[in-house]
Amino acid sequence: MKLSQLMGERFKETPADCQIASHALMIRGGYIKHVGNGIYSLFTPAKRIMAKIEKILREEMDRIGGQEVLFPVSMPAALWQESGRFEAVGPELLRFKDRGGNDMVLGMTHEEAAVHLARGTVKSYQSLPFMIYQIQTKFRDEPRARGGLIRVREFTMKDGYSFHTSQEDLADYYKEVHAAYERIFARVGIPEVISVASDSGMMGGKVSHEFMLLTEIGEDTLCICESCDFRSNMDVCECVVRPEPSPAEPLSLVHTPGCKTIEEVAAFLGADAKSTCKAVVYRKNSDDSPVIVFLRGDLEVNETKLRNYLKEEIHPAAELSEGGGIVPGFIGPAELKTTAAVVFDRSLLGCGALICGGNKADYHYRGFCPERDIPAADYIDAAKAREGGGCPKCGGETLKVSNGIEVGNIFQLGDKYTVAMGMQYADAEGALRYPVMGCYGIGVGRLAASVCEAHNDKYGPVWPISIAPWQAHICAIRSDEPAVRQAAEGLYKELLGRGVEVVYDDRPVSAGVMFSDADLLGIPVRVIVSPKTLERGAAEITTRTKSLVLDSPLEKAAGAVEGLVKDMLEKLG
Amino acid sequence: MKLSQLMGERFKETPADCQIASHALMIRGGYIKHVGNGIYSLFTPAKRIMAKIEKILREEMDRIGGQEVLFPVSMPAALWQESGRFEAVGPELLRFKDRGGNDMVLGMTHEEAAVHLARGTVKSYQSLPFMIYQIQTKFRDEPRARGGLIRVREFTMKDGYSFHTSQEDLADYYKEVHAAYERIFARVGIPEVISVASDSGMMGGKVSHEFMLLTEIGEDTLCICESCDFRSNMDVCECVVRPEPSPAEPLSLVHTPGCKTIEEVAAFLGADAKSTCKAVVYRKNSDDSPVIVFLRGDLEVNETKLRNYLKEEIHPAAELSEGGGIVPGFIGPAELKTTAAVVFDRSLLGCGALICGGNKADYHYRGFCPERDIPAADYIDAAKAREGGGCPKCGGETLKVSNGIEVGNIFQLGDKYTVAMGMQYADAEGALRYPVMGCYGIGVGRLAASVCEAHNDKYGPVWPISIAPWQAHICAIRSDEPAVRQAAEGLYKELLGRGVEVVYDDRPVSAGVMFSDADLLGIPVRVIVSPKTLERGAAEITTRTKSLVLDSPLEKAAGAVEGLVKDMLEKLG
Repeated sequence: MKLSQLMGERFKETPADCQIASHALMIRGGYIKHVGNGIYSLFTPAKRIMAKIEKILREEMDRIGGQEVLFPVSMPAALWQESGRFEAVGPELLRFKDRGGNDMVLGMTHEEAAVHLARGTVKSYQSLPFMIYQIQTKFRDEPRARGGLIRVREFTMKDGYSFHTSQEDLADYYKEVHAAYERIFARVGIPEVISVASDSGMMGGKVSHEFMLLTEIGEDTLCICESCDFRSNMDVCECVVRPEPSPAEPLSLVHTPGCKTIEEVAAFLGADAKSTCKAVVYRKNSDDSPVIVFLRGDLEVNETKLRNYLKEEIHPAAELSEGGGIVPGFIGPAELKTTAAVVFDRSLLGCGALICGGNKADYHYRGFCPERDIPAADYIDAAKAREGGGCPKCGGETLKVSNGIEVGNIFQLGDKYTVAMGMQYADAEGALRYPVMGCYGIGVGRLAASVCEAHNDKYGPVWPISIAPWQAHICAIRSDEPAVRQAAEGLYKELLGRGVEVVYDDRPVSAGVMFSDADLLGIPVRVIVSPKTLERGAAEITTRTKSLVLDSPLEKAAGAVEGLVKDMLEKLG
Repeated sequence: MKLSQLMGERFKETPADCQIASHALMIRGGYIKHVGNGIYSLFTPAKRIMAKIEKILREEMDRIGGQEVLFPVSMPAALWQESGRFEAVGPELLRFKDRGGNDMVLGMTHEEAAVHLARGTVKSYQSLPFMIYQIQTKFRDEPRARGGLIRVREFTMKDGYSFHTSQEDLADYYKEVHAAYERIFARVGIPEVISVASDSGMMGGKVSHEFMLLTEIGEDTLCICESCDFRSNMDVCECVVRPEPSPAEPLSLVHTPGCKTIEEVAAFLGADAKSTCKAVVYRKNSDDSPVIVFLRGDLEVNETKLRNYLKEEIHPAAELSEGGGIVPGFIGPAELKTTAAVVFDRSLLGCGALICGGNKADYHYRGFCPERDIPAADYIDAAKAREGGGCPKCGGETLKVSNGIEVGNIFQLGDKYTVAMGMQYADAEGALRYPVMGCYGIGVGRLAASVCEAHNDKYGPVWPISIAPWQAHICAIRSDEPAVRQAAEGLYKELLGRGVEVVYDDRPVSAGVMFSDADLLGIPVRVIVSPKTLERGAAEITTRTKSLVLDSPLEKAAGAVEGLVKDMLEKLG
């Protein structure tokens, strides 16, 4: 490809709406163009990166026995009604009507389509297990698209679905997929990706993992133990806190005028937040009725765990008015008479005596002892784990909280979909059974952007050679001089002949423009031909990172570039 | 791939809803599964065929300088409002609202997205011409999905868009695309595809061609001259008829009781339909007002040409009532006093005296002479060409009417989109100009189905090797016998090692089932290993067409298969 012919523009200024590096660099480098909220067109360099990632995905899915299929983007709502998700999933599922007035959806995931394809086709245990996958466009009506290709509404995804005769077989295959995912992330250049236990959310099932690239700009929060191998998404991380017992006291009402927050009360009474019990109020989405969560004053509620416990959607109560036993600002568990649902976090246990709301304006209790005063309550895990908190696995106070980008996920789905959609097979005895399923996703565009996040400098992306849009980049400085043009074109042709993917900057622009454009294209190997290098009878070969800069005799330059490309490719496996 | 592991079922019975061969065979062979009206999932064999077609498309697009990009499937309506097509295109454009209530569309074609990508990026004549293309999912809300992958609502399409500084440059590039399309159809195994002049329809522009595979089941009607190279879609084919003059007569009203159709009148008056002038009535979609077309009694109206002349949508008038000068059943051009729009077809010219409606119940005129009686009318070309009619190019009465499937189309769009969407570049003098565009489409699934239509027998598809899901198919008959299993597995591994794409039927099924499944998979080269062939120390190699059947010594069989595959591939270029 001659750069003079490549569609797309590169420029220096970071657009105002670009908060993260990959977004800025992919706009500035002529990779992507914004079409609408969370919707992009891809220029050729991005399309080439995606194609290389897709090839790696195919190879690794085929290697674990995957069969590539293609499900439709648009589906009749009836399929999603069978699984119950047409009603259950929120507005991120795009629903529309076709010209005949029929309800349709745009696929945001394809469990229903996978069961539909397999149902009626797979009749015997002898056809199991199998895994089918596709690489296809998906649409999720995200409320907050952001960060370029990191969080979009329309995206290309590799999604796989496996079917098994038993949970054990699924669990074994799940490990194979886990290993395939590790190979994929290593091959695209981010072997540092880790897997963490995660919330299965709307997918169903109990075991699931997310693959995370740790980075400050990540939207996910992770809890990672620094002394063992425990790793979890914050969403599902158990909160382990050491109780700080204080001597038991009788429950007594104290006057705390104007102290509405737990911080104010603690300060007023000269106590630590750890010695208090605070109330956080939510409302159920279904009927707007309140849910009061009591937990230790120094902790926060983990809404995902609360939602999973309640088995329904909730939202923070924006404004509370007095009534139904609730005195806003002074809610406490002791002597509370309310119609609201009440949840007790287990951080309250073992504390001895706590300060809590008095259920009366300007009053709090001292000496609240949860085990003594509310013995019948279920004390559940509803608090957020935190930096320095206890590790649920090894028990050390060694939890570290980090941000990460989710670059892949795997789920053990169980039989949720096969039962709901009536997919059965005959076992060896002829009895009809429901297969158990796993599902496995990787977003192609987000993966490309994540690699860019992990590999860039202030000048542009530093693409690993396995997914770089091209492998080598010829800069012909002063290509208006016949000697330069002749040498560069010769090199270009020879590299093409050797099967090296090469882009050739044949434009009559300054070396400065040429190099900054090359940095934005981020191609691993660069060859510079200029009047100066030709004086030495050489071409200069460098890497994008400048870890290598060398002169090669002109006639040997193509061979040297090819060798360098091969070495780099081998290193990434 | 071992056939025992391949997802999908093959069966003998043709499903009742399958009217055409490719539909039936792709259902029966485990290629596709119906998900909803005009929406299919693809099993692995179909996905592999599509991938091979896509590779050929990429190679041929790249060869003519195409740059692969990716446009979104979902687009803000605003883009389509800029071009005017959000309002102009009918319900086949799927419109929906996102969660924020914003109007969106699903891409059925991507001229708007192409201009959006190029606009602001291409600033100078030096960046022109260029061609960008994508291979992406499209959705058209077809009123009549039919024939399996022949006419669907969701499909994968290769669509390209070129931008030029002049109509001449576009015309030159258009020829290159035409040649690339001919190579594509030849490479996928249907070199017999022809191009015909076509109607540009909602795309705009004046010159366009469709690539047609001639077949009885085709939905398009084509006019092809048997003595010159004239080829046209019926939609736009000029109707050339020889006038059959009769001596002039004075206009006279005759009583024709009960004769409402032109056939009844002609019979009653002992005249030929050629000596009559009939009226056909349409209504404008916009305001339901009538449009009367007068043409020679033996011809039919070509609604596409009429629509293009009127520049608006029309539909046949279902029922006419008397009024506004119209006497249903007796409408004639002479002495007609009506508020309706009236169109005269040029077939009326040169006829001398014609019979036509009397605009009075039970009366017709004789002696109507269009040139004499309605001299001021525009006589336009609004009639359908017909078998044996005059060729618009060579003039011979040599037109043949055939059916065809449209497997590709190319359009010279002019500046319709660049003007509407404000895309400009600076020419060499710095003046701002609008590029002219071409666009070029091929539906991948329809192309696969069309190849299947062209290449099948009663047992299944006969895939050309260039797009066959696999190249070779091993049938191991009695694979429960260790010798057979060992020989077949050895062959399988050796073929894989030689890089041959091979499917290995390792199932414990009868030779009958094995062969009928192999026929349905339609793989070009078949290798049979059985106790019988092993007695001869051989494997039997045949082609899907049985044009070749030979014994190969077992140890040379893999080499022989590889050679055969290579020969077949070479023949298709």
